[in-house]
Amino acid sequence: MVHTGRRTVATRGQGDAHDITRLVSDVVAESGLGDGIVTVSVVGSTAGVTTIEFEPGAIADLNRVFEALAPRSGDYEHHRRWGDDNGSSHVRAALLGPSVTLPIVNGEIVLGTWQQIMLLEFDTRSRKREMVIQVIGE
Amino acid sequence: MVHTGRRTVATRGQGDAHDITRLVSDVVAESGLGDGIVTVSVVGSTAGVTTIEFEPGAIADLNRVFEALAPRSGDYEHHRRWGDDNGSSHVRAALLGPSVTLPIVNGEIVLGTWQQIMLLEFDTRSRKREMVIQVIGE
Amino acid sequence: MVHTGRRTVATRGQGDAHDITRLVSDVVAESGLGDGIVTVSVVGSTAGVTTIEFEPGAIADLNRVFEALAPRSGDYEHHRRWGDDNGSSHVRAALLGPSVTLPIVNGEIVLGTWQQIMLLEFDTRSRKREMVIQVIGE
Repeated sequence: MVHTGRRTVATRGQGDAHDITRLVSDVVAESGLGDGIVTVSVVGSTAGVTTIEFEPGAIADLNRVFEALAPRSGDYEHHRRWGDDNGSSHVRAALLGPSVTLPIVNGEIVLGTWQQIMLLEFDTRSRKREMVIQVIGE
Repeated sequence: MVHTGRRTVATRGQGDAHDITRLVSDVVAESGLGDGIVTVSVVGSTAGVTTIEFEPGAIADLNRVFEALAPRSGDYEHHRRWGDDNGSSHVRAALLGPSVTLPIVNGEIVLGTWQQIMLLEFDTRSRKREMVIQVIGE
Repeated sequence: MVHTGRRTVATRGQGDAHDITRLVSDVVAESGLGDGIVTVSVVGSTAGVTTIEFEPGAIADLNRVFEALAPRSGDYEHHRRWGDDNGSSHVRAALLGPSVTLPIVNGEIVLGTWQQIMLLEFDTRSRKREMVIQVIGE
């Protein structure tokens, strides 16, 4: 009914993108569930999860738009209050969100041919990201 | 416990918006479930799902903001690598996300009076969009 | 299996942010569930839910980026059609989304140390926001 997968992904700073589709589909396979949903979440407030055509061009384009929205070297209240340098990371992560929920039908995550699940690091330094993959169904 | 609805929606290119509230509530009614959640997802990496007051003004405003964020005629790495023209579509879709999850209480999706579920096409051409609507509950 | 919590949060206009982590974790505790997911949603089309490091600096930074994206005093089709003044609210809410879904493991919502669940008001006036917190699991 409920199956939990926990995985760690090592990231290398802002804009580092990881195709985690296989990691997630392995957890779905482990669960043995036929139909349901999977919620893929990253723990923490400076990374996000979404789907994308996982190829270097589209990822560079998305990172460029995030840089225009919330420039890394911009002026942030978060920096003034905490002596930190990752204000851009917090803004980007809050916008993108920490999780994505996708359907499972006949034991498979339903994705398009050119659609992958992506962990996107926003923090300004390397992190060990803890992913929690929650599979619910029957 | 789990009920899956699959529906196809024909779209007409970037910015084409569809009110899919009725389509989703029909699947929820079919399921016979009283309380739970519904995950509404679009298959593919160039469309998105969210909620909005579904009226032409708000939709035009949202499309205008997406055009400022990721202009259709902008310069995209995705175009250079693949000879494609839908870099703006990929960026917008990754930002908005491929699904929305909403509560079901007493057999009804809980939405505001002026809140509808919207499929938003971002691709630069017409598509036949496959929606997967996953209802989970009791 | 399914537990529903409904709560009201009084907000004070555009940019007003509320840390609703405790409110949500109380509903999860009430449910008695060990493992599953929680979907936290706000009813209506002019507010949003996400996670953030809930401190005034990061919240101000996020609000500033939303103001640049969809300025409150901007020119909106929604205003022309309806004589309304909250076009910026609709755009921001559609972008952020009305809900977030998070994992529950061993009876606890899995969040980072500096990660809280936030209700963000986008409307231009005070509202009484209805939150629906749906807990599903076993």
